[in-house]
Amino acid sequence: MTSFAIIGHLARTDGGFSLNDLPGSGGRMDVLCRCVNAALFLSHDLRRDADCYLVLCGEPAGPKTVKFSGTLVRSLSPDERSAAALIKKVIDTPCGSEFREASQGVFIRKGGLERLMSEHVFAVLDEKGTDVRNAVSLPDAFLLSDHMNFTEREETMIRNCPRYSVGPKCLHADHTITLVHNEMDRRTIGWR
Amino acid sequence: MTSFAIIGHLARTDGGFSLNDLPGSGGRMDVLCRCVNAALFLSHDLRRDADCYLVLCGEPAGPKTVKFSGTLVRSLSPDERSAAALIKKVIDTPCGSEFREASQGVFIRKGGLERLMSEHVFAVLDEKGTDVRNAVSLPDAFLLSDHMNFTEREETMIRNCPRYSVGPKCLHADHTITLVHNEMDRRTIGWR
Repeated sequence: MTSFAIIGHLARTDGGFSLNDLPGSGGRMDVLCRCVNAALFLSHDLRRDADCYLVLCGEPAGPKTVKFSGTLVRSLSPDERSAAALIKKVIDTPCGSEFREASQGVFIRKGGLERLMSEHVFAVLDEKGTDVRNAVSLPDAFLLSDHMNFTEREETMIRNCPRYSVGPKCLHADHTITLVHNEMDRRTIGWR
Repeated sequence: MTSFAIIGHLARTDGGFSLNDLPGSGGRMDVLCRCVNAALFLSHDLRRDADCYLVLCGEPAGPKTVKFSGTLVRSLSPDERSAAALIKKVIDTPCGSEFREASQGVFIRKGGLERLMSEHVFAVLDEKGTDVRNAVSLPDAFLLSDHMNFTEREETMIRNCPRYSVGPKCLHADHTITLVHNEMDRRTIGWR
């Protein structure tokens, strides 16, 4: 199982955003939707061995975490609006501190990065890290930021995480996820 | 300059589609919007040395080709809806058989793949092709299909094109573009 977690620094934490304005009213929910797509989609298929966590840190309801389980999710479409509609529904489902399934294969709970880091050993994807192609082995959980840098508080939390880079250019989070998957696909099949 | 051309087999050729239903009424316009994103976006920047051609083959107005010039385009946002809104505007601009600039850096003309193939030497991205990592050098123009396979007529037209693969899994067109860019970025900088 490969897990990707993306921090949405401004991502709305209730359903009060417009599907017609994901970048603005959704707090760059478009970025997170593209990350779900990159983490879970193959052509005409889903990656059943991958999970995607969205850590929503925006207004008004404190951090919440949405988990898309590639194993369990049904009825997921690759376009941003469909993913956002699902998130909008899930995010308004009452929840506590444990994951609750709000739609098939999509879960929600209160809490953010700190809790998630107690459950996974994350590697951080960062342009200054070790080239993924040169790594002897790759971890199975990766943490990324959205369009913003990690905050100072987050940097403190992740200071001991190993860091990997996918290439020489600074890329969008979803493009980075695609590149990590490709490196892992190649290793699994024996292409290098 | 690196060029990507994507065939949108069902993509609407007038503005009569809804921004709220890009997959359905747009004839999978969402796929093409994601390809524009993958072809042109870096984090907080654009790839000024890339072009993206969308070959729209759907109803009602025969094939049309939209060109996004990474060098010239302004006001492009990475979300699907913004790209689709731009395409919707451009596509209804009256045009002939030569490219007309319908928005800054975005051009439209009548005609499809045949014309484009007379102007570029395309390599086809195809899971059965040569691994891009093993290619001694890479071409500068790549052709991809959307969510559908190339038609028989298209296969005849591209039968002599070299074919390259980005990895062992069958991927979405936009993910494939991201992987080609990464391979080229690495070669440019000297990362291998």
